[in-house]
Amino acid sequence: MNKDDAWQILEACRRRIDELDLRILELLNERTRVVEEIGRAKRVLDLPIYEPRREDEVYANVTSHNGGPLPADAVKRVFERIIDEMRTVQKLRMQEPLKESKGQGGVER
Amino acid sequence: MNKDDAWQILEACRRRIDELDLRILELLNERTRVVEEIGRAKRVLDLPIYEPRREDEVYANVTSHNGGPLPADAVKRVFERIIDEMRTVQKLRMQEPLKESKGQGGVER
Repeated sequence: MNKDDAWQILEACRRRIDELDLRILELLNERTRVVEEIGRAKRVLDLPIYEPRREDEVYANVTSHNGGPLPADAVKRVFERIIDEMRTVQKLRMQEPLKESKGQGGVER
Repeated sequence: MNKDDAWQILEACRRRIDELDLRILELLNERTRVVEEIGRAKRVLDLPIYEPRREDEVYANVTSHNGGPLPADAVKRVFERIIDEMRTVQKLRMQEPLKESKGQGGVER
């Protein structure tokens, strides 16, 4: 790889990163909508937000399916952050007054 | 939403989360492969791994495109974790002996 090639590769890779990030962002927001729906269901069922056994299942799902190159411990830390942020969203959702859900992500978005 | 509905919604939402997580995982690994390629290009160009201006661009890309419901500050924290983990991968990559890259993610995977 000469320097001209390296500059071109660098630029192309950065554009690719920006595209991938927007796809990740879209999935994070879709995941958040599902978590909001879970918050509504849990409120009806009077279940706690934090369910350690379910969180272990979530980590097991991603680490057991991880083919790399991102190492398993790094995958776990990224998902810890994702779960932590979404737990905060779920808490806010559960503090809101109960109203009829129209299902599928609700009326509030 | 009655309790039976709520249980069904909860179960369906959890299956959906598991599917979404595997798609996020796939994109994270694809992003890691691109970051590895960036590491190789930077080594040829003798550029540092940490480039704060480029990282600001990455955050600006995701926060400016965020339609929610995940709040912008939560999006930023998730991407801080992603970038931090991938910087570690990039560092390891740059410590390896130089060899010919076959491009597109390299030969080492």
